Amino acid sequence: MPHKDPPTPAASAVDSEEELFTAACGHARQAAVLASVESLLGWDELTLMPPRAGPHRAEQAAALAAIVHRQRTSPEQAERLARLSEGPLGRDGPAEIAATIRLLKHDFDKRARTPARLVEELARTCVEAQQAWASARAASSWVMLEPWLERIFALKREQATCQLPDRDPYDSLMDDYEPGARWTALAERFDRLRAGIVPLVQRCVESRNRPDDSILRRSYPIAAQQRFVHEVAESIGFDFDRGRLDTTEHPFCSTAGPDDCRITTRWDEGFLPTALYGVLHEAGHGLYEQGLPRQWFGLPPGEAASLGIHESQSRLWENLVGRSEGFWEWCFPRAQAAFPEALSDVDAASMQRALMAVRPSLIRVEADEVTYNLHVMMRFDLERGLIDGSLRVADLPSAWNDRFEQDFGIRPPSDADGVLQDIHWSGGLVGYFPTYALGNICAAQLMAAAEGAIPDLWQSLAKGRFSPLLDWLRSAVHGRGRLLDSESLVEAATGSPMSEQWLLESLERRYGKAHGFG
Amino acid sequence: MPHKDPPTPAASAVDSEEELFTAACGHARQAAVLASVESLLGWDELTLMPPRAGPHRAEQAAALAAIVHRQRTSPEQAERLARLSEGPLGRDGPAEIAATIRLLKHDFDKRARTPARLVEELARTCVEAQQAWASARAASSWVMLEPWLERIFALKREQATCQLPDRDPYDSLMDDYEPGARWTALAERFDRLRAGIVPLVQRCVESRNRPDDSILRRSYPIAAQQRFVHEVAESIGFDFDRGRLDTTEHPFCSTAGPDDCRITTRWDEGFLPTALYGVLHEAGHGLYEQGLPRQWFGLPPGEAASLGIHESQSRLWENLVGRSEGFWEWCFPRAQAAFPEALSDVDAASMQRALMAVRPSLIRVEADEVTYNLHVMMRFDLERGLIDGSLRVADLPSAWNDRFEQDFGIRPPSDADGVLQDIHWSGGLVGYFPTYALGNICAAQLMAAAEGAIPDLWQSLAKGRFSPLLDWLRSAVHGRGRLLDSESLVEAATGSPMSEQWLLESLERRYGKAHGFG
Repeated sequence: MPHKDPPTPAASAVDSEEELFTAACGHARQAAVLASVESLLGWDELTLMPPRAGPHRAEQAAALAAIVHRQRTSPEQAERLARLSEGPLGRDGPAEIAATIRLLKHDFDKRARTPARLVEELARTCVEAQQAWASARAASSWVMLEPWLERIFALKREQATCQLPDRDPYDSLMDDYEPGARWTALAERFDRLRAGIVPLVQRCVESRNRPDDSILRRSYPIAAQQRFVHEVAESIGFDFDRGRLDTTEHPFCSTAGPDDCRITTRWDEGFLPTALYGVLHEAGHGLYEQGLPRQWFGLPPGEAASLGIHESQSRLWENLVGRSEGFWEWCFPRAQAAFPEALSDVDAASMQRALMAVRPSLIRVEADEVTYNLHVMMRFDLERGLIDGSLRVADLPSAWNDRFEQDFGIRPPSDADGVLQDIHWSGGLVGYFPTYALGNICAAQLMAAAEGAIPDLWQSLAKGRFSPLLDWLRSAVHGRGRLLDSESLVEAATGSPMSEQWLLESLERRYGKAHGFG
Repeated sequence: MPHKDPPTPAASAVDSEEELFTAACGHARQAAVLASVESLLGWDELTLMPPRAGPHRAEQAAALAAIVHRQRTSPEQAERLARLSEGPLGRDGPAEIAATIRLLKHDFDKRARTPARLVEELARTCVEAQQAWASARAASSWVMLEPWLERIFALKREQATCQLPDRDPYDSLMDDYEPGARWTALAERFDRLRAGIVPLVQRCVESRNRPDDSILRRSYPIAAQQRFVHEVAESIGFDFDRGRLDTTEHPFCSTAGPDDCRITTRWDEGFLPTALYGVLHEAGHGLYEQGLPRQWFGLPPGEAASLGIHESQSRLWENLVGRSEGFWEWCFPRAQAAFPEALSDVDAASMQRALMAVRPSLIRVEADEVTYNLHVMMRFDLERGLIDGSLRVADLPSAWNDRFEQDFGIRPPSDADGVLQDIHWSGGLVGYFPTYALGNICAAQLMAAAEGAIPDLWQSLAKGRFSPLLDWLRSAVHGRGRLLDSESLVEAATGSPMSEQWLLESLERRYGKAHGFG
């Protein structure tokens, strides 16, 4: 759209452009403030909300979603962004500003193509469906969830077609989580990953020198776990003045503002890794959120690059730091002080090795680092089928079980241990799963670069000095916001194009060692 | 405003009126749904929010307040309400509908006269001022709070003049909490109350047979208190499927939806009544909220009549039930099971009597039932002075201390124990305090009527059967919503005009007995 204002001298035109940019940013930021209220509603729903408050929460979420959508698609903002992207700032302005304009316009156009009715219906349906999911999972009853997934996938197909009509529908949905991603390229990358992982799993499983992980299944009193994981999260840098840790069925990280990042975990008295790695994972997300440039809250320079990059941060802390020998050199004395009975006859090395056991298992969030990727790739394939229509929702449980048996050699004994285990689809998160495997890929590549950039990295970690690594991530990843897409960001941070080879090398080296080969 | 539609046959005119009524209610309800999100933000702010998230929370609250205000003052709703109040439903419709129309219009007009800028500024300032209050109170530093109170009282004076320009400014502010109340009438009522209370306090203090309350100051482990008060709240009827109990510095009850009532308390290991009576009080509020007709959520038939009536419910459960001999007959074995060490040598009668000790003290929320009213009347007088300009904010601490010394014979040793103790003014709640004493007045009158209506009331309570009393309150008070003002509601429920005589009689009888006179 051309400028509507009459031509003015250059200096004044620049001023006016800058005012326009300020107004556009103010508008987007204000919508983000309201969207952060939506986050808080969602967090509260999953952590504290009284059991019967669900229907009203769905009304609240729908009302707020409609307001945020209306604000985000207002005609004045359309006008501002159209003028800015055609104007000098959008075309030749400083890189940060030009990228901000481009991304604001991309987001605006996507949303403006989505009818308010659909946005509101999705918000309401997802709250209701998540509650149905919780009941269905508890009852291991697929039929309780099935009608909800029918509605969700119908709404998501509609959303896909509306928001980016020129893109493949699955790519359109992925764009909400992994901007610009194409499933065809991702599928090729995953094929290469699978080709390395399947034989690695096989060698681990068949090894005669498997790690003994029985020590993880002793009694770890919950109150002691709570103090212990709080200390660990705080030590790696999670700022509890700007965040919280609570308890939920399904761990997550949610941000209700630039200084309000809330992570959750669950607790299992008989299995320490549930809470510890839940917290290391979510705190990794939290460190990213807390490291985004807060003065740019709600705008692309202050937003996460993608969920793949987000997941790279959680996976890096959970697996590449949290399962390392260096980390356990620091952590083990603390664990032993927290759990003197369980760990009296254990040492740091056997603890660390226990955490490296590879064993095909039913539940994604409890999977080991190696088989985890197989869980993700399977969901990626299934949900593509649900979107392109080649798989019907009604056939999902059998498709799930068949595929699971094929990949893992086990058939889930119940739907609770199978198709009902994840909250994502009932929460409207379709196209989200592949970001988990992408995160693993990026995490390994970033960690290799950090090792190169910080010569005494492992010695630092072994002494509990996590700030050299965190500072490197702050500068290489967190501080960049969303101005680069994930491939460009990884290349800028590491000096190499994104590749799954780092992950494969890392897994083979570390798991080979733990299983007595390689 | 006359009808704009052309004249139509009677039947169709009625239809159209009913459609209009439905639309007006739908609009008001939708605004109430958004306002319930504001409640949740406020609850979260006081219970769980990370320390540094305050400034962003202020932005969220202001943004949402502006949206709610815009929605509540929309021109379409103005048009609907104008037509309805001039039309047959508003003039001669069923009482419930006519009253709903009248009250919706009253609320609408009040809000429409208040500029959005003021609403937003009040919302933001109150969040910030409450945070300043928490710090100021912790530091006992008046100067940390003073500039915030200057701003708050300036904004409240402006609000008073805007919203009900024909009313006295203090009455205008009171209308938000106690619809239609006039401070002149209230001051006369309070004078009569004071005339009875001051000599009663004197007699109690001078009694040679004062209750021994030292047993309340033994060690009551917090974890046991938590289980105990949860059981008590549940037993009197608070529905934890539709509510929660959390911990805050200042106990309160907040409603985030018709099935989402959240109460809070604080804990003092060395003084059992802090948590127990905090919870009985807030659960009393919660029972009212949970008893409002939920199908009318967000509309006058589903709203509380006034904060005075609200307080009558909390005070009734806290004091008239919770400090009674009958209640302790049921409660004491439970208390003894919860605190076997502290209560091993105590019996129900001495426990009950310990809870009746009258002793002038510094902190309102810790005051006994008799002197409590003096705390309230003092705040009522001071805040009127701050609104009418006869008292300057800068002079508040000395005015507070002088008045306190005059009424209680003690001069607060610090501002934390004096002018900084309450959250109300920093939260923008001006004209709110008198509803506390009004609540005591109504509670006593309602309880006397309940005793008349339920012959075996005290025997029921002594057996832990609280439902006869709760059912009576549900029908006499809760189920009526806000369709009657508080004076009419009390008269309808009890058969007598509202009077402070019931409170005076109740206090004299019960506290005379506990102090060995009367």
